[in-house]
Amino acid sequence: MSHGNKQQWILAKRPQDVPDPSEVVFQEVAIPATAAGMVLVKNHYISLDPAIRLWMSDIPNYLPPIPIGDPIRATVVGEVIESGSDDLSAGDLVFGLGGWETHSTAPAEFWTKIPSDSEFPLHYYGNMLGAVGLTPYFAIVDVGQAKAGQTMLMSAAAGAVGSIGGQIAKLMGLKVVGIAGTDEKCQWVVDELGFDDCINYRTTGDMEAAIREKCPEGVDFYFDNVGGEILDAALLNMNKDSTLLFCGTISTYNATEPVPGPYNYWQILAKTITVKGYLISDHFHRVVEGQEAMSQWLKEDKIKFREHINEGIENCLDTYNLLFTGGNDGKLMLKL
Amino acid sequence: MSHGNKQQWILAKRPQDVPDPSEVVFQEVAIPATAAGMVLVKNHYISLDPAIRLWMSDIPNYLPPIPIGDPIRATVVGEVIESGSDDLSAGDLVFGLGGWETHSTAPAEFWTKIPSDSEFPLHYYGNMLGAVGLTPYFAIVDVGQAKAGQTMLMSAAAGAVGSIGGQIAKLMGLKVVGIAGTDEKCQWVVDELGFDDCINYRTTGDMEAAIREKCPEGVDFYFDNVGGEILDAALLNMNKDSTLLFCGTISTYNATEPVPGPYNYWQILAKTITVKGYLISDHFHRVVEGQEAMSQWLKEDKIKFREHINEGIENCLDTYNLLFTGGNDGKLMLKL
Repeated sequence: MSHGNKQQWILAKRPQDVPDPSEVVFQEVAIPATAAGMVLVKNHYISLDPAIRLWMSDIPNYLPPIPIGDPIRATVVGEVIESGSDDLSAGDLVFGLGGWETHSTAPAEFWTKIPSDSEFPLHYYGNMLGAVGLTPYFAIVDVGQAKAGQTMLMSAAAGAVGSIGGQIAKLMGLKVVGIAGTDEKCQWVVDELGFDDCINYRTTGDMEAAIREKCPEGVDFYFDNVGGEILDAALLNMNKDSTLLFCGTISTYNATEPVPGPYNYWQILAKTITVKGYLISDHFHRVVEGQEAMSQWLKEDKIKFREHINEGIENCLDTYNLLFTGGNDGKLMLKL
Repeated sequence: MSHGNKQQWILAKRPQDVPDPSEVVFQEVAIPATAAGMVLVKNHYISLDPAIRLWMSDIPNYLPPIPIGDPIRATVVGEVIESGSDDLSAGDLVFGLGGWETHSTAPAEFWTKIPSDSEFPLHYYGNMLGAVGLTPYFAIVDVGQAKAGQTMLMSAAAGAVGSIGGQIAKLMGLKVVGIAGTDEKCQWVVDELGFDDCINYRTTGDMEAAIREKCPEGVDFYFDNVGGEILDAALLNMNKDSTLLFCGTISTYNATEPVPGPYNYWQILAKTITVKGYLISDHFHRVVEGQEAMSQWLKEDKIKFREHINEGIENCLDTYNLLFTGGNDGKLMLKL
């Protein structure tokens, strides 16, 4: 059965910096036939996340690099059009690993069914109830073993992961100090989300001193989404036996030269810090548990968030690149 | 009561590279009176370890920098001459934190008494039964939670910590591949100590490929004593959910410019590696437990070691600097 054409963005060559339209190319192709074990999904939302930029590069990573010529990989939310698996049927709503395209065909195990009685809007499954919300949840509750009374430092605090993570930590009884790139973002995480404090790294000359001032008792838990100079400043403020939850290094994702690790790497030994490399994909088997906790907090209005949703598959690349200028105002998604 | 003079090496100024006699200066001074709570020890052996070089520098560390004008800090083994504490008496044999000097005066809690019925020679307490042997013991057994069947990669494999650590790992049932700087050292750790294999990093062009060849199943536990390029090559060979026990970075200790962390820092996330910063001083409360295990292995001749013992306090600096050329042939100590 033919389903006509789909529109998509493919990787024509590996980007040198922020990806441009000569590297990530828009095209229209026929939707392939749905083979046994595969599921064809019409995408309603595409989640635009920093990690996608890494998958465009040819570096050893937790997922293989996107092959040249393939669509850009992304988590998506959509509706099953045709299923070659007994686990899913046409009409089911799902989220999973698709691409920057109007329709994605992927193995059945890449998709998670959304309960038909869900009381939340569909796009929540590209955000709070999908990988974005579950990322800080398992990082803080499970892998990082955060404890009430600790001081958490959160980089990219106004970002999708950081803003949700900081609120989870507050709900668990931690002191939370954020780091963000505008005064408006700092004000938002403090006034609206309940962070204890926030540092604007773009207007702060000496980040080490600024963190020391806001965390006079030192940092017990650094939730790192950015790497780079902020990580170096954080390391000098970390406590003995503290935890560095290593979730990302967005400051380096567009680099074309090899980027060194932190200059203050020695502090990991000097303070006997435990660094935990972290991937949400390792925790997908517990997705229901995470969604239940997040759903409860959402119902009780205990977690707030902002979404920045643009429309139209043709705008996908420009929308994505907002991540690297801080031009997005909340969790970035594309609606189709 | 006057005890006459002592000879010592003091820190005159912070070294720029490998310390030289204009920076670390030999002198003779009067032995100070022993105040309440202090203990005067006549040193018999001085343990010469890489970490001392770091204490000479003015960087934030787990111990404060050696103050300018103070003797160089080191672990020593000796005999109590005069005690201002009820816990120790003249004639007791002890090991603890003293300095590059013929006599050291330090608080009673800096010293650990050696059992009067010990069947081992005194210098063993500056080596196998002191901080050196206990360093890999707690690192592998306790902090790193090594498990039989795992593959361990050991840098500075012929060094004091590495050679003992590799043997402990073998006793625990791990596969152990070493990295050392001469063919002779490689042969020693394989033929005499029972390592499974060893890579000579000075004659190997592509360390990443060499590690892959020797560890085709990947590295589960990297015991890092060196940092630098070897760490970068190791990171590319580490397995998912593996352990990086961060015990030292001797390749960087003489650097005068800031040294970056590993260029492959991202692999910590990509492979969800746990990095454990490690200090033996956190485990001194369990010293008896560690000594019992090491003593048993020594009695059963299950752990072998080499010592490089020079004589004479005036030779301390030259002897110490052998560490940075690989010129020592076994655990480096000075006998007085």
